[in-house]
Amino acid sequence: MEQSGDRVTLGLDEVFAIAKSVLVAAGLPERQAEPVARVITEGQRDECHSHGLFRLPGCVQTINHPRFNRAAVPVVENTTPAVTKVDAGFGYSLPALEAAMPLFVEKARTVGISVLAINNCFHFSALWPEIEMLTAKGLVAIAMTPSHSWVAPAGGSRGALGTNPIAFGWPRAGQDPYVFDFATSAIARGDISLHKMAGKPLQPGWAIDADGNPTTDAAAALDGAMLTFGGHKGSALSTMIELLAGPLIADMTSLESMDFDDGVKAAPAHGEILIAFDPAILGGGVRDNQASSERLFSAIVDQGARLPSVRRYEARARSLAHGVQIPRHLYDQVMSLPRAG
Amino acid sequence: MEQSGDRVTLGLDEVFAIAKSVLVAAGLPERQAEPVARVITEGQRDECHSHGLFRLPGCVQTINHPRFNRAAVPVVENTTPAVTKVDAGFGYSLPALEAAMPLFVEKARTVGISVLAINNCFHFSALWPEIEMLTAKGLVAIAMTPSHSWVAPAGGSRGALGTNPIAFGWPRAGQDPYVFDFATSAIARGDISLHKMAGKPLQPGWAIDADGNPTTDAAAALDGAMLTFGGHKGSALSTMIELLAGPLIADMTSLESMDFDDGVKAAPAHGEILIAFDPAILGGGVRDNQASSERLFSAIVDQGARLPSVRRYEARARSLAHGVQIPRHLYDQVMSLPRAG
Repeated sequence: MEQSGDRVTLGLDEVFAIAKSVLVAAGLPERQAEPVARVITEGQRDECHSHGLFRLPGCVQTINHPRFNRAAVPVVENTTPAVTKVDAGFGYSLPALEAAMPLFVEKARTVGISVLAINNCFHFSALWPEIEMLTAKGLVAIAMTPSHSWVAPAGGSRGALGTNPIAFGWPRAGQDPYVFDFATSAIARGDISLHKMAGKPLQPGWAIDADGNPTTDAAAALDGAMLTFGGHKGSALSTMIELLAGPLIADMTSLESMDFDDGVKAAPAHGEILIAFDPAILGGGVRDNQASSERLFSAIVDQGARLPSVRRYEARARSLAHGVQIPRHLYDQVMSLPRAG
Repeated sequence: MEQSGDRVTLGLDEVFAIAKSVLVAAGLPERQAEPVARVITEGQRDECHSHGLFRLPGCVQTINHPRFNRAAVPVVENTTPAVTKVDAGFGYSLPALEAAMPLFVEKARTVGISVLAINNCFHFSALWPEIEMLTAKGLVAIAMTPSHSWVAPAGGSRGALGTNPIAFGWPRAGQDPYVFDFATSAIARGDISLHKMAGKPLQPGWAIDADGNPTTDAAAALDGAMLTFGGHKGSALSTMIELLAGPLIADMTSLESMDFDDGVKAAPAHGEILIAFDPAILGGGVRDNQASSERLFSAIVDQGARLPSVRRYEARARSLAHGVQIPRHLYDQVMSLPRAG
């Protein structure tokens, strides 16, 4: 740890140790705390600050949710040669994901496509770390979750959909994978709160007020609803994510998850669906699929457009070389939380 | 057939007979002509005019493409317990889809998720008829294809992506399924041409000119590139569709398909990916997934928002009761094409 003015520099091992000790002190057993601490460390490493150490106080709040199960042990079900289900038992999603990952991956490599349904979990993590676990194994991957019903459908006036992220990854030989991970809401919920705190107006098209009228007032938006990105197309896509990551796998929609939260405002509890494809099986054709995808990426980059995740990979390289920098007030806030050991 | 002023009314059997006879006269054997005529009839029935009889002259042009194989017989490959591939042999995609459908459906019902890769096909059809084939069997379904590289990535200045449609379906007990089918371009390519013909300006955000600058001039847009819907998120989604429906299944990207066309401007030749999920296997939990999804649909509809495809289902009911109405000039154009039998 080094301090310089209003910044504190931490090694990645320090970030992990702090996160783990706070989670354990909050009551999480090590087997649940470690996967969560790993993802917080990865978020901080890639300068996804909203999923880094900033999240620790929220994690403590979630662990204290009356419906959170600190003793949860994930139960993996070997459903079919292409389907794996894992019941997180109302602990965090991440220990369940790690428990089911070997079977999920093995099935994709054996039959070409495989689905993993994570049920009954509390969920705070970004999806890209999970996508990268799969691209690192040479698999193409999609992940989706619902959230809480803060988002109005196109043409509507109140929340029915979640912020419903979708993430996708494509492995690239000898390079960082092509990965995106975005909310299907026009803007993240946290960004609305940040605008409110800063007294800044929202952009038009982000939100509606409690009467269903367009608003650029952040407080009115928090009482009303957010909108999806991309109008009726984004709204349809968000609905698809609700259905695939909710009812399809017999888990909660964002409406149901909001009910389940019962006003505590913890991390949402709901399911997650992941789909993995093995290009060695699906692309067993005459065409070289890496040459084909690399030509596409070149056509994008050569005209000055950026691939998603490039900023993350640049941040990662910096963090691996020099550690991470966080604001002093965040460091102080995190260090004021009870820690174990 | 009934004529009244500038409208002609046809029964659905007449639409099918006209379409089939034109396709056969153009050189398509009956086994290829019938699936194509069926989809044209369904498009006309649902008042998706761009995929109805309007498409017949374009189909004739495609059949005359030097690389179109009139003698193609689809070859179905039983790849794995979850994967089916079908080689369309550079005929139309639809006979290949119909040939592979039984195996594709059986696998989804057996292992819970199944993928169908259609390779080496000419493609003109909307995706919703294929999605409805699957929802009719109680399956949840996704379909995607690339097209030709008319669409610039977010932040770019020239075409690299296709109009790349994605379609999704969710079966509903005793009701029409929830189905959407949209291009990930901001607007359909044909609509740009219609604006040019009508001398109407485009909406901002639809297209850029050959120098990569925003334009509302349709002619400049046709020389330049279209944009995706939804900014960088739509652009990322379009890239995902390129990768899943192209290189993943060892078929062409939109860039490669444009090369393959070699300036003929026929229907694009490329692959298609379909994914089917069996909710009976994936949703084998304690939760009633129909109750959960119906609550979501009610939350959307009860606030005055529309579900996608509702206009299509209304049109279908009208067409089934009264036949379809088409403009006199379209009828005359279609009837001027050579017909068999």
